[in-house]
Amino acid sequence: MEPNAARSLREPNAHSSNALNIMLEASARLTGLICGTQPMNDIWSPRATLQRMLDVEAALARASAAHGVIPQSAVAAIEATCNADKLDADALARDAALGGNLAIPLVKQLTARVKDADAQASKFVHWGATSQDIIDTATVLQLRDTLDLLDRAMASTCDAIAALAQRHRATPMIGRTWLQQALPITLGLKFAQWLDALLRHRERLDALRERALVLQFGGAAGTLASLRDKGGAVAEALAQELKLQLPAVPWHTQRDRIAEAASFFGMLIGTLGKIARDISLQMQTELGELGEPTAAGKGGSSTMPHKRNPVGCAAVLTAATRAPGLVATVFAGMVQEHERALGGWQAEWDSLPDLARLAGGALANIEQIAKGLEVNVERLAANLDVTHGLILGEAVMLALGDKIGRMDAHHLVEHASKEAVKSGETLFDVLAADASVTQHLPVEQLKRLLDPAHYVGSAHAFVDAVLALHTARKNA
Amino acid sequence: MEPNAARSLREPNAHSSNALNIMLEASARLTGLICGTQPMNDIWSPRATLQRMLDVEAALARASAAHGVIPQSAVAAIEATCNADKLDADALARDAALGGNLAIPLVKQLTARVKDADAQASKFVHWGATSQDIIDTATVLQLRDTLDLLDRAMASTCDAIAALAQRHRATPMIGRTWLQQALPITLGLKFAQWLDALLRHRERLDALRERALVLQFGGAAGTLASLRDKGGAVAEALAQELKLQLPAVPWHTQRDRIAEAASFFGMLIGTLGKIARDISLQMQTELGELGEPTAAGKGGSSTMPHKRNPVGCAAVLTAATRAPGLVATVFAGMVQEHERALGGWQAEWDSLPDLARLAGGALANIEQIAKGLEVNVERLAANLDVTHGLILGEAVMLALGDKIGRMDAHHLVEHASKEAVKSGETLFDVLAADASVTQHLPVEQLKRLLDPAHYVGSAHAFVDAVLALHTARKNA
Amino acid sequence: MEPNAARSLREPNAHSSNALNIMLEASARLTGLICGTQPMNDIWSPRATLQRMLDVEAALARASAAHGVIPQSAVAAIEATCNADKLDADALARDAALGGNLAIPLVKQLTARVKDADAQASKFVHWGATSQDIIDTATVLQLRDTLDLLDRAMASTCDAIAALAQRHRATPMIGRTWLQQALPITLGLKFAQWLDALLRHRERLDALRERALVLQFGGAAGTLASLRDKGGAVAEALAQELKLQLPAVPWHTQRDRIAEAASFFGMLIGTLGKIARDISLQMQTELGELGEPTAAGKGGSSTMPHKRNPVGCAAVLTAATRAPGLVATVFAGMVQEHERALGGWQAEWDSLPDLARLAGGALANIEQIAKGLEVNVERLAANLDVTHGLILGEAVMLALGDKIGRMDAHHLVEHASKEAVKSGETLFDVLAADASVTQHLPVEQLKRLLDPAHYVGSAHAFVDAVLALHTARKNA
Amino acid sequence: MEPNAARSLREPNAHSSNALNIMLEASARLTGLICGTQPMNDIWSPRATLQRMLDVEAALARASAAHGVIPQSAVAAIEATCNADKLDADALARDAALGGNLAIPLVKQLTARVKDADAQASKFVHWGATSQDIIDTATVLQLRDTLDLLDRAMASTCDAIAALAQRHRATPMIGRTWLQQALPITLGLKFAQWLDALLRHRERLDALRERALVLQFGGAAGTLASLRDKGGAVAEALAQELKLQLPAVPWHTQRDRIAEAASFFGMLIGTLGKIARDISLQMQTELGELGEPTAAGKGGSSTMPHKRNPVGCAAVLTAATRAPGLVATVFAGMVQEHERALGGWQAEWDSLPDLARLAGGALANIEQIAKGLEVNVERLAANLDVTHGLILGEAVMLALGDKIGRMDAHHLVEHASKEAVKSGETLFDVLAADASVTQHLPVEQLKRLLDPAHYVGSAHAFVDAVLALHTARKNA
Repeated sequence: MEPNAARSLREPNAHSSNALNIMLEASARLTGLICGTQPMNDIWSPRATLQRMLDVEAALARASAAHGVIPQSAVAAIEATCNADKLDADALARDAALGGNLAIPLVKQLTARVKDADAQASKFVHWGATSQDIIDTATVLQLRDTLDLLDRAMASTCDAIAALAQRHRATPMIGRTWLQQALPITLGLKFAQWLDALLRHRERLDALRERALVLQFGGAAGTLASLRDKGGAVAEALAQELKLQLPAVPWHTQRDRIAEAASFFGMLIGTLGKIARDISLQMQTELGELGEPTAAGKGGSSTMPHKRNPVGCAAVLTAATRAPGLVATVFAGMVQEHERALGGWQAEWDSLPDLARLAGGALANIEQIAKGLEVNVERLAANLDVTHGLILGEAVMLALGDKIGRMDAHHLVEHASKEAVKSGETLFDVLAADASVTQHLPVEQLKRLLDPAHYVGSAHAFVDAVLALHTARKNA
Repeated sequence: MEPNAARSLREPNAHSSNALNIMLEASARLTGLICGTQPMNDIWSPRATLQRMLDVEAALARASAAHGVIPQSAVAAIEATCNADKLDADALARDAALGGNLAIPLVKQLTARVKDADAQASKFVHWGATSQDIIDTATVLQLRDTLDLLDRAMASTCDAIAALAQRHRATPMIGRTWLQQALPITLGLKFAQWLDALLRHRERLDALRERALVLQFGGAAGTLASLRDKGGAVAEALAQELKLQLPAVPWHTQRDRIAEAASFFGMLIGTLGKIARDISLQMQTELGELGEPTAAGKGGSSTMPHKRNPVGCAAVLTAATRAPGLVATVFAGMVQEHERALGGWQAEWDSLPDLARLAGGALANIEQIAKGLEVNVERLAANLDVTHGLILGEAVMLALGDKIGRMDAHHLVEHASKEAVKSGETLFDVLAADASVTQHLPVEQLKRLLDPAHYVGSAHAFVDAVLALHTARKNA
Repeated sequence: MEPNAARSLREPNAHSSNALNIMLEASARLTGLICGTQPMNDIWSPRATLQRMLDVEAALARASAAHGVIPQSAVAAIEATCNADKLDADALARDAALGGNLAIPLVKQLTARVKDADAQASKFVHWGATSQDIIDTATVLQLRDTLDLLDRAMASTCDAIAALAQRHRATPMIGRTWLQQALPITLGLKFAQWLDALLRHRERLDALRERALVLQFGGAAGTLASLRDKGGAVAEALAQELKLQLPAVPWHTQRDRIAEAASFFGMLIGTLGKIARDISLQMQTELGELGEPTAAGKGGSSTMPHKRNPVGCAAVLTAATRAPGLVATVFAGMVQEHERALGGWQAEWDSLPDLARLAGGALANIEQIAKGLEVNVERLAANLDVTHGLILGEAVMLALGDKIGRMDAHHLVEHASKEAVKSGETLFDVLAADASVTQHLPVEQLKRLLDPAHYVGSAHAFVDAVLALHTARKNA
Repeated sequence: MEPNAARSLREPNAHSSNALNIMLEASARLTGLICGTQPMNDIWSPRATLQRMLDVEAALARASAAHGVIPQSAVAAIEATCNADKLDADALARDAALGGNLAIPLVKQLTARVKDADAQASKFVHWGATSQDIIDTATVLQLRDTLDLLDRAMASTCDAIAALAQRHRATPMIGRTWLQQALPITLGLKFAQWLDALLRHRERLDALRERALVLQFGGAAGTLASLRDKGGAVAEALAQELKLQLPAVPWHTQRDRIAEAASFFGMLIGTLGKIARDISLQMQTELGELGEPTAAGKGGSSTMPHKRNPVGCAAVLTAATRAPGLVATVFAGMVQEHERALGGWQAEWDSLPDLARLAGGALANIEQIAKGLEVNVERLAANLDVTHGLILGEAVMLALGDKIGRMDAHHLVEHASKEAVKSGETLFDVLAADASVTQHLPVEQLKRLLDPAHYVGSAHAFVDAVLALHTARKNA
């Protein structure tokens, strides 16, 4: 999922002479490509939204006709008219305010258009369905496209990060806690931890597909009463038409599936935000350890050539700032009244697409960054040396402890560390000058102990364990 | 602020032959008029957003020229080009992703367009400013328009509610606590409480204007360094050009002003949500006390003539479900890094407009409802009678207590109430049949005590007090 | 999980002479039992929190000794001292502010206490671990207890609701959309939809157990460096000691597991909130369809015997109002810096327990309500009659349509409905008086068509389908 | 407001023999002093909460007696009993679950205790009030204490930051945008911007006092009906007793005042969070520009002497992560039903105190840091040199532009900058070696231009302007 590539916002309309269509495509926000991508925005565009609703209407006609609920003869005209380009989107947006949702004016327009072609068929448009059936099922279809897109991008991102973890499995760097230098780690360990979290998100995506990609079809009060004894059969046929699962019962005011989707987007964005925070901190001018891949015109400054703005990370961090509030909105909306909600459902309409778009954009940015991440090994090494060896005091202490006991070793190293801070010498210099140390730890061994690469504990094993999970997922 | 009226989504382009313009206007979402209004959406439309940014650029050219920072001769070409219709919005949206904000490609396009007209002038576009200066100041200008629009609508809404409070100052209705019938109140008291809250929001709007409508102008790092010794003078002139206040210091990463605006929108929406909740509950089929004004095609159902969907209230409740998460987003974004943020600022870009649009829509809906609210006095009276007088036990108890002491009165009325519940009789019937009651409270007095209109305490005085505040505000 | 039962807040200290202990137990908030329960509060009490941290320390000593990292002789003294009653909780709370977390002073106190018993052993307290290892793993242990408690309560709640769905499978009631009467449903259908959502939450709980109940153990920078070549072995032993899964890699700043737990609590509370909203609306004085089980002193009013406050529902709705913000907090905290966070992790400390307590309380309330829910069948029936048959116009229209075509049937019924509204007659009276109707639909059939019980579509089948899922889950 | 000082969590109970009291004081959470302070926690402690409710009950007795509503003789016994130490807090917490709020069991216990002393007086406890009157007014009293405490701490914090701004008015440092080095600023400018935001928060606090510190008193349905014609008089007297403003009308379900308080806390925390983010970033080992004041045991590490954990900043950032969700909760709760809410009001009970505590803690931390902030001028200077002069290319370009025109100057400096990056030389070296530069800018001038202290634009003036605002506020 390459973000935004070369295509124009309006490309799909290039050959259209219909101004209405232009509106449909163009409704992306001006900011839509800063934190979003064209492919994901397309899934949730006004045009796609309307088309998905029409897809449900067309499938409903087929399913109803298959069970004799509406005449087979009505299907062709309905199907042929279920084309978003034939709608007057302006009127639709305006009329939506009257009925309170998009399906009411859509059905009205659809019926009128079908009537132009086949008056008889127009009587059977939307048969047995309620507005929410159409809107929810269309949303589920968009959700399916969204999960497909994210799944592919997650797979590709995981591959890219796995490659980084493999490559830098043993590249030492300083581990930082409280934004302070702590002990050495490896860059591969950091990558492995990102990957580990993303692999869990892949599991969550699988589970979400199982639970959320289901038909909504219940009619006005959720009983399918107007279909009399054909409710079950039509519902089953409709689910098959749309390749969705058939739920045990309509779920108009049970929104846990939607909440789970929102939560998934929010958690994924949270993990991506953590990655972006790490990268942007490591990109600080004073650290210079990592760099977003350079791209023409991206993040650079002609007058400040030293400046490499983490534009991709900023987009991800923006998403991470926005997602919690949007998730909270969808969760707050779960408390719905009776058989159709008064506000809680409607609050999903813009919040869920916003989350999907932000997830798509954040993931695309991290994917792109992961594929081209610049690693400055010299700076990683230099930053390990900033404290002149103090970060390795523990390593010396442990080795010395084996010889003279932990408490004495602790006091000795603590004293040497303070001495080094005071004098500006390296910890090595201080320790090497102290016979009470060198009699137990010869200079060669001391040097080795003060090499960060030798004090990364289980880091390599951790990287291997995560890579094994990644491989297992790929082979599954 | 009549919501949406007759105008078309694309009307402003009616005479435009420029497809780009169509996109700019059309970028409203399909759902944009369900919870929003055209006038407010227009303030935050893509076109308006770009035009406001260009307004700042034009004013900057004038202010800089006035102080000799750029040649006076450059102004005309820059001013003439600062027209949103001349921009390629597609390219702008696409390029925004590269630099991470809208101002970078806007300045690039603006410079190119100016160059076409006057190559010399093009060198002085955007002089001394940073992207955030332009974006923030444009946002402040949109905020000013927003506050103007809301202020007028609040005044008008307050008038409408004040009229309702006056008219129904003494209309008795049942007060409900825990969704249970409690004691009588007056409908006017309920309206007065709505009004009282809205009057406080008017104060908050005044304060917000004072604090938030300020220029943002600091240049790349907030020092105006590239203007050398002219920084202060240009800033002052720019503030005058735009009729904004000049702040003591640039506020690129101090977002309390924006947070206060977000918070204001959120609080206003909260109050409007409370009003909508009350109305929609009182509109329940089983209660039928209030009704949204009927409008052609709004909220009705041809096959279910008893059904009066509270479409306006639903829109307000949708806003009230969404606002807290959006406010939280802006607040979360306050924690910004150094002299320019990495995510926190950017998170405002869609969240603040969303809040403004929701506030505009919610207010317009309540305004429209308040102006045409249907009050069903019969149902209000009938619902007061649902408990057959039990809601007035306290009134009898107090009167009886004056005669026989509170404890005895309490026991007597409690007993009578239970009796009434058991037998299905009215409390009046039970009490009137009890000589130990009627010897102190003759039947006539008992009747009066059991008249809800006589047990509304200070309700009238409360209504008057709030109406006085409203009048004072009008006369201020 | 009966909420709060008879036990006292301080019962555990009944036999304690130690004032410190009293504090530990007593730290529940005054409001802790309004929206919470004693058993869940106990899991997250200060005492339990400290004990769980000590449990991890004790297990760590055993695991380390098993692999020769610390002397076996040190274990006994450490284990014996790992008792929350031996801590000075005041000092701990105070010192936590200095180091920024609870583990630092806990380890300090623990070490001092162990030293009193066995100076040698005290050197091996907390060996190889970092504060976050202890705090996170203790949290995971509390999470495990929480999930166990919720799982049992969910099973029991599902049983209770399933029984209600079975019993009222065919009890007709009015379905309501937009808070307006729409078409008949069955009460069983409503219950089945609640149950269906809860069954999905049981699946989510299963998945959460799999993913979240893992050890945290990485040492200062996540490498277990101070354990040198024993890191993996000790980690594995520690996981076994605590009966937790061993993750592939430490997850100090990868918080998706915690976020998933928060999200689970939030979604569960959302569903419970929906149930509470329905019940409280149906408990309205004017509806009177359902009632929370009566309990001595609960929700009643001596002076207003008609009043039945939905106290349990209010507690659930309170939880539902609070949960989204708390979930958002945990999600916002995911964006953590490097190898240890500066705020994001710490934001979980009170938010996750708050969510667990609210989930526990909300579930206990719904469990208790479901077990004793009062169903007023007369009021359900009476409310079906409020519109004098208008809610069944569609049923007549469909039947008539079979005879005279849909369009004519539609016009006829629409006309009759309006007539009924105008005249105040029932729809039956109007239709029965119309020969153009009765010639196709004899009065007997008309009567049947206007019986709500005959117009509930697939409601029975839906109930059966959900009950089958419930049975399958029980048998699984 | 010195955070946490020396006092013990249980100190108030030191001399108490009453176990109940211990519980009341002890209910602080274990984490309560990490992000909170003792003085603020005390305001919202269980004991204080109950005492404030009792204060309202006592004042109500006096006010009612003053107007003959209850006998004067009842006052003494009621007043004497309004002492939190006399309550059984355990029973209270337990019984609160039955009635759904704390006031019901409190009134019950209070009445029983008064009865022990004066049976007659006990009949007049809580006369005319509803639970919410007591709870809300007590909250307002706690809010008043909170605002007093915050106001003093804000004044003191502003003084400390003003002193820093004055002292470092001209101390040059690198300005950073996108976490990248941009242009020089002064440290004083940064401090001035913090101060400027805090001064606005002081204005907001003033406004909040005006609007929020009002009495709540309306009785069961907000009409004061049980006080018959004395409602107004008693309300006025009660407001005077408590030194609160008398509102025009009770505001049981109009929560904008509480929302404004929540929003104020949230905005203040947001600003403090921004300050903490800056400090913690500047404290990074690699930057080392600022340091939290050292305190015994705070933030240090004996084995890693280079490590200076920003413990205070972490506490503030924790608050900043939590506040948005808590504000959202209070806002979400505004949508309340009729005359008493079902969840929305109750959601405030823990959220508002949490916000107050977090605000108190965050402010105390920043106050303490501001008073002892360590500024490492050498590191500030060294970091200005990291790019070898590239950050001053613009300064040279402007000066050169005066001589040879901007375009040529731009090209020349851009070229030199790239050259410097490539060669590793300083920008000065490159420029000084270029005769086409030095013929216009002699080496001495070039040196001056490349001195960061000379390229800080209006920074000094900005600092002065903010300091003037601070002085004006102090003198106001």
